[in-house]
Amino acid sequence: MHKKSSLVILGIDPGTKKSGYGIIKVEHPRLEPLDFGVITPPFHTDSNHCYLVLFNSFEKLLKSYKPDAVSIETQFVDKNVKSAFRVAMARSMAIITAARQNIPVFEYAPKKAKLAVVGNGSASKNQVQKMVQLILQLSSIPEPEDASDALALAICHANTLHFSLKTKSHV
Amino acid sequence: MHKKSSLVILGIDPGTKKSGYGIIKVEHPRLEPLDFGVITPPFHTDSNHCYLVLFNSFEKLLKSYKPDAVSIETQFVDKNVKSAFRVAMARSMAIITAARQNIPVFEYAPKKAKLAVVGNGSASKNQVQKMVQLILQLSSIPEPEDASDALALAICHANTLHFSLKTKSHV
Repeated sequence: MHKKSSLVILGIDPGTKKSGYGIIKVEHPRLEPLDFGVITPPFHTDSNHCYLVLFNSFEKLLKSYKPDAVSIETQFVDKNVKSAFRVAMARSMAIITAARQNIPVFEYAPKKAKLAVVGNGSASKNQVQKMVQLILQLSSIPEPEDASDALALAICHANTLHFSLKTKSHV
Repeated sequence: MHKKSSLVILGIDPGTKKSGYGIIKVEHPRLEPLDFGVITPPFHTDSNHCYLVLFNSFEKLLKSYKPDAVSIETQFVDKNVKSAFRVAMARSMAIITAARQNIPVFEYAPKKAKLAVVGNGSASKNQVQKMVQLILQLSSIPEPEDASDALALAICHANTLHFSLKTKSHV
């Protein structure tokens, strides 16, 4: 089986106020950052229009970078159920735009992403930012945190994939 | 202002296993059923593909019937948070497909839809089915319940709109 020499991964940290995204190119052992940032639907936008802004923005990112995979956080029950529902809605915009382009979506628990990047599942946001900067050889820490978290999710998927390829020989 | 003589309303009762839909044409006082049924993503489909099935099905309905409005249930916190998240995801497929076609989405509490149809916010599913049959002059009760609930949501919006037009004279 022909093995693709490089992969592009889009990490998404979904939210209705801010959705972080981070795109990396993987040529093991090298991880190259292609783009990162946040999508912030206009303030005071009604929630349905907000989902449309997210949908269109995710679709644009997917069309521009044609990632091989999308990596997002697994959602857990939140104490604030109302805000958890908003995250679920934003999350579904990431999932449906990827599904429409036949791009597989992988989910990682927040602890797993931190573990992959920092080596500690309870790492602080700042520790994640510093390690993402180091791994991707960025000139400054990736900001805001949402973008850094999205890059961490992309790195987490790259590492998982690498480990999986190493353990399944000749895949 | 020119008043459109008839309106088409699509009611949606979202769910990942079954999503009910009901389309009515409103020419007050007449309400005409155009179509109703359920979308059932194939059993054992992974959840992301399931959302794609819903997205494509809602999009098809919106393109076929070109409704002036979409009416869906307001979602409340459920005891089973996991299943509530699935409903939220299915719900977001209805919202985003409507938003992409610039069709306004109206939300009604389940009690309000029952009140509009049966005159009792605590009506049983069967009572809703019987009243929907009567209002839309159907030859038999609309089945399954998800389709009947979707029709009830469409009727609820039609009634709310009618009341609003009557109270705001010369709109």
